Amino acid sequence: MQRSSPPPPSCSSTSHCFPLSHLHTAACGSETAAEPQKHEVRAGSSPSDFSRMRSILCFYMCYALCLCLGLACVVCVCVWNSQWRGGFAWDGSGLQFNWHPVLMVTGLVVLYGNGAVLYRIPLSWGHNKFPWKVAHAAVMLLAFVLSVVGLCAVFDFHNNNHIANMYSLHSWIGITATALFCTQWVFGMIGFLLPCTQISIRKLLKPIHVWFGSMILMLSIVACISGINEKLFFVLKGNNGSKPYANLPPEAVMGNSLGVLIVAFGLVVLKILSNHEWMRPDSRPEDGVYAPLLQEDNE
Amino acid sequence: MQRSSPPPPSCSSTSHCFPLSHLHTAACGSETAAEPQKHEVRAGSSPSDFSRMRSILCFYMCYALCLCLGLACVVCVCVWNSQWRGGFAWDGSGLQFNWHPVLMVTGLVVLYGNGAVLYRIPLSWGHNKFPWKVAHAAVMLLAFVLSVVGLCAVFDFHNNNHIANMYSLHSWIGITATALFCTQWVFGMIGFLLPCTQISIRKLLKPIHVWFGSMILMLSIVACISGINEKLFFVLKGNNGSKPYANLPPEAVMGNSLGVLIVAFGLVVLKILSNHEWMRPDSRPEDGVYAPLLQEDNE
Repeated sequence: MQRSSPPPPSCSSTSHCFPLSHLHTAACGSETAAEPQKHEVRAGSSPSDFSRMRSILCFYMCYALCLCLGLACVVCVCVWNSQWRGGFAWDGSGLQFNWHPVLMVTGLVVLYGNGAVLYRIPLSWGHNKFPWKVAHAAVMLLAFVLSVVGLCAVFDFHNNNHIANMYSLHSWIGITATALFCTQWVFGMIGFLLPCTQISIRKLLKPIHVWFGSMILMLSIVACISGINEKLFFVLKGNNGSKPYANLPPEAVMGNSLGVLIVAFGLVVLKILSNHEWMRPDSRPEDGVYAPLLQEDNE
Repeated sequence: MQRSSPPPPSCSSTSHCFPLSHLHTAACGSETAAEPQKHEVRAGSSPSDFSRMRSILCFYMCYALCLCLGLACVVCVCVWNSQWRGGFAWDGSGLQFNWHPVLMVTGLVVLYGNGAVLYRIPLSWGHNKFPWKVAHAAVMLLAFVLSVVGLCAVFDFHNNNHIANMYSLHSWIGITATALFCTQWVFGMIGFLLPCTQISIRKLLKPIHVWFGSMILMLSIVACISGINEKLFFVLKGNNGSKPYANLPPEAVMGNSLGVLIVAFGLVVLKILSNHEWMRPDSRPEDGVYAPLLQEDNE
């Protein structure tokens, strides 16, 4: 049965498919059978230059917010640990522990989130896809390395001070997020970057990659918030004449604000990823519309 | 320009649109302009009886898992607080506090999650939509009431024991989730249940409703995990000859397991909501395919 009026873009025209659903759809090209048809839809929708410009402008506003919130998270976690927690060292002391929140927030949240929205930047749409795949993998690798170093910092600190590892709920969630991230990166590398990988394997891998990607970001945020909450209760006990957490001293406000910023950053990232209009079209703009790309050119 | 081969179902044929993106799409009928076209896609995809049966079977397996995990969450949080924390009372003591985790997990996570997947049950597809809207609103209202009573329990306990309210990051996130839930319910009620609400307002409200819905579930899980983590550190200090949290006594294992179950429940709910095949079709099955529904019949 043929239909003369093509359906609207996938998800819905309101562009509210939910977070990370298209992250790896954009990331991995056209591994699913739906891709060529999806491009046809885009070509058929013929958005006006004005609406496209407005959409791009909105994207850059959200992207700027994402960058600002990410930067604010990194600044906050650094200031908190340098100003209130005594700074950094790698000597098995509490100063070594301070690397843990800094590296986990920077790696597992901020860099991960920025790596996720990389394909949404319209600047990347007119280029060959392969360099962006490599950039995506590189940012994610850097995020993963920082996370692992962040874990080493806390394990080493615990071992030096005869503190048990991996007993709290925070640690269970955090280690799960990092382990999934590792699995995700390795399978993503094998599945989507190695040229010898068959398209059929990519098709099989893609939905799993998408699902893992979304789980990791959520688990990372859960782990960060529970970790910051735990740390503030640990250190703000009102000893030595200092105010307890319950009195909301400046350090408590800083720590809580960091948590709020992390949640806000995560939501903005998910919002960007949920907007279908901001997906990488996998084709170069031509005469104001996106021409269908029926075959992969960069796989 | 007409096209002879219609695109695949929205999102992607792999059905991996992300969590909650379709919750209120299903919930609220066809408020968006994309809806009639979406139904056309469904009609055009002509799934075989076998694939439909397999899809429905898969749904019920996931739904059974969702029910089991939800039940396990409620049982765990009840057993934890009755067996290890001394049970329940409403007298301003620690026994009153015990209602807090029980009611928040039951209301803000388990009932909320079950209310969210209500429209995915194939049993509901052949019926008038309105009763399911009412059921959705009723389950969500019950979830909200339990959450509010859960908050009253902890505020009352704090006030009776001269403990400050609303200072921890856990409380900031939790109160935000509940406030958003309240806003969500009120606007959802006005927007989608009152017959006098115009379709144009529903169209405007729907994406906001979707976005709020997804945020609330994530924030609820973040709040629950940070709260359980905090509580275990509070109570498992190794006083009175009992083992500290770091030694993972049975209560710690129970609390951590509850956290893992909550995360697993949330992921299963989000997985169910992400599967496009499991969306309520907004039309009755007819000759093995879903006929397009061009006009709202139950708004």
